[in-house]
Amino acid sequence: MLINVLEVPAGGLEEAIRSWEAARDLLARQPGHVSTRLHQAMAPGARFQFVNVALWESPEAFAEAMRRMQADLRTPPPAGPAFFPALYRVVRE
Amino acid sequence: MLINVLEVPAGGLEEAIRSWEAARDLLARQPGHVSTRLHQAMAPGARFQFVNVALWESPEAFAEAMRRMQADLRTPPPAGPAFFPALYRVVRE
Repeated sequence: MLINVLEVPAGGLEEAIRSWEAARDLLARQPGHVSTRLHQAMAPGARFQFVNVALWESPEAFAEAMRRMQADLRTPPPAGPAFFPALYRVVRE
Repeated sequence: MLINVLEVPAGGLEEAIRSWEAARDLLARQPGHVSTRLHQAMAPGARFQFVNVALWESPEAFAEAMRRMQADLRTPPPAGPAFFPALYRVVRE
């Protein structure tokens, strides 16, 4: 499971969504992509306004897709939101 | 959906799991609790080593459970991990 925690500067919500949508449009076409959901905090004061949770068929499929995205982005990622994507597995329930 | 992002100091993984388990044991008994899963980053260098994702019947049920947990904790929460719990809803897929 890919969990991507976004730290968004004040006033940067719309830009963060646009950045996320641009990345989603590209990543969703990559082999091994299963699903993705962008979650927004219900409280405006939450430290992390957005958390994206995506499912991939394998860590390798995700790594390859990220490699392609970085190579494909003609323009550098916007300065606004800070992204912290990482692969996770369930360790306790 | 409750997403709780944990920032864990170096060497603090075991303590973070113990803290999480203590809170889970109490919260899981509260009315309205549905499920909870603790996710650990597969890469040791990930900024956020743990992300907990829990389902509650309503935001109110979660808020009441948190109120009880804070009142019930005889000892202050350990200094180790920093917890950033917040309620989220899906805004894009």
